[in-house]
Amino acid sequence: MTFSHESTTPEAPLPLPTFEDVSAAGRRIDGQAVVTPLLEYPALNALTGGRILLKPETLQRTGSFKFRGAFNRLSLIPEERRSAGVVAYSSGNHAQGVAAAAQILGIPATIVMPDDAPAIKIANTRGYGAEVLLYDRYGESREAIGERLAAERGATIVRPYDDPGIIAGQGTCGLEIATQAEARGAAIDSLLVCCGGGGLTAGCALAFAQLSPATQIYCVEPEAFDDTGRSLIAGERLGNGPDARSICDALLAPMPGELTFEINRKHLKGGLTVSDLEVGDALRFAFDTLKLVVEPGGAVALAAILAGRLETEGKVVALTLSGGNVDRALFREQLTL
Amino acid sequence: MTFSHESTTPEAPLPLPTFEDVSAAGRRIDGQAVVTPLLEYPALNALTGGRILLKPETLQRTGSFKFRGAFNRLSLIPEERRSAGVVAYSSGNHAQGVAAAAQILGIPATIVMPDDAPAIKIANTRGYGAEVLLYDRYGESREAIGERLAAERGATIVRPYDDPGIIAGQGTCGLEIATQAEARGAAIDSLLVCCGGGGLTAGCALAFAQLSPATQIYCVEPEAFDDTGRSLIAGERLGNGPDARSICDALLAPMPGELTFEINRKHLKGGLTVSDLEVGDALRFAFDTLKLVVEPGGAVALAAILAGRLETEGKVVALTLSGGNVDRALFREQLTL
Repeated sequence: MTFSHESTTPEAPLPLPTFEDVSAAGRRIDGQAVVTPLLEYPALNALTGGRILLKPETLQRTGSFKFRGAFNRLSLIPEERRSAGVVAYSSGNHAQGVAAAAQILGIPATIVMPDDAPAIKIANTRGYGAEVLLYDRYGESREAIGERLAAERGATIVRPYDDPGIIAGQGTCGLEIATQAEARGAAIDSLLVCCGGGGLTAGCALAFAQLSPATQIYCVEPEAFDDTGRSLIAGERLGNGPDARSICDALLAPMPGELTFEINRKHLKGGLTVSDLEVGDALRFAFDTLKLVVEPGGAVALAAILAGRLETEGKVVALTLSGGNVDRALFREQLTL
Repeated sequence: MTFSHESTTPEAPLPLPTFEDVSAAGRRIDGQAVVTPLLEYPALNALTGGRILLKPETLQRTGSFKFRGAFNRLSLIPEERRSAGVVAYSSGNHAQGVAAAAQILGIPATIVMPDDAPAIKIANTRGYGAEVLLYDRYGESREAIGERLAAERGATIVRPYDDPGIIAGQGTCGLEIATQAEARGAAIDSLLVCCGGGGLTAGCALAFAQLSPATQIYCVEPEAFDDTGRSLIAGERLGNGPDARSICDALLAPMPGELTFEINRKHLKGGLTVSDLEVGDALRFAFDTLKLVVEPGGAVALAAILAGRLETEGKVVALTLSGGNVDRALFREQLTL
């Protein structure tokens, strides 16, 4: 079977992933994904009056958390279906994650990417041996292109977030945060997760619901792409306007996923938003003080803390730096501001 | 007493630090210094054919390893001498380390810095509450300025590398590398350390001589400042030419220290050098692939690996990324190349 687009009815309802799926994903990616450290900076603690624990998925294989979900999902494809390959559509980080996982597992991969994706993401995806097809983000439907391709080839579509195997894989990031925080005796008051379609958020929520249920979880989104935050308030999935724009190329999903929203509505405390200017401030703070290269979409949770969106005084706050795949030109430009 | 400049005879010979001093320093800095992670990247392993373990002291308090030695050394100052303060001379990273340690310990600090030091280093040093005096790197003697100040005030001079307390403190970086590598079952074949005056190298050598004696240790220096490498071959301390220049502002020491060389000549396999262009390549590699901000002087060991100065095929190689305090302007310029 192939999965159809998440805004239409799937051929069969997909099961919601569970904590056990996240645990199983952790065993599956062991030795393939990087166990990224949980970082703490005295300077950031002093600035916020709290204890800020950073999970730099920038240091993950392929430069973002997406490898976790991709490797877990591809590992679930039955042997007899692997030679027909996988097809994915992605703004770039999922593309690289799928391409790298496919290369390791020996599965042919075709990735449909927007033609305005960062050059580094397109180049890296090709570097992992995937075939890349470019499309116009604002004029064509990547889902339609992907589904046509998959149908022609009998390939498996690997959706960027609305898939139980993807969500469970991203949840291993949450597993690690909870485990690493406990190992250093920190009880996390709040967890802030960078949010596009909601896969990383949902996966982390599954992990925390089991391992740290007292933690309040927030998704963080760009102002113009605050679909998950608004949907949480409305109690139903709402989309973003067609004219919405942001420098956070990794977080431009049109609306929450069905599965991700079902999980997030159950576990999240709420949503926070940041402006592109605040994201730029966070990029520069990461450069000057953290010495980390973070891409715009990977910096929204840090931006929320720096912009004072959440009370941090005396609190333990964990947050994801979910990716670092930023073009040199954009980074140079941000450093001049 | 105040210590005199290392090129003249000290009032009394300073004792060489031992492994026990490094261990004691580890206990002293516990909870103050950051236990930086030991990072591994599948992409770098694939590129080199080996297993490359990176110690990012870029993530250390003050953005370089120097805080380790400074906090250890300042902790050794007797209570009755603390109010008279400390005086240090430094191109920038030692300055920040001493200033931050002094602030924590409540000791007044005066730092003599070259007027061409990176602006970020000068600003950060002042930010930690230290008084900063600027001098002309190529026209004045920072040691003379520092000694005059110390004599006037009865302050303690904190030398950047040729001091047993400093060397022992830097050695805690080596302690962590050895311990972290062992925890993941990696036996380190070679250790590459960024080298200016040789304090980090000597400290790490003391740690490894005890914990991993089979590891071959190399210092890595800029081509024009290869004093330690040449001194190892000559068997005596040799200096660099007065016209030597490099973008590695952190590694411009005129010659090896007495104590550091005494330790390094005993434990090092040899020295490696890299050009400024190779350092630039390493900065860009760190940005593109490692997602780390590294300053020129902190990138020389990585540069040596990328430039093929050492056989890495099938080997486990650990290296320091010793600092990340680089100005935005220089970094932007490097990203355009």
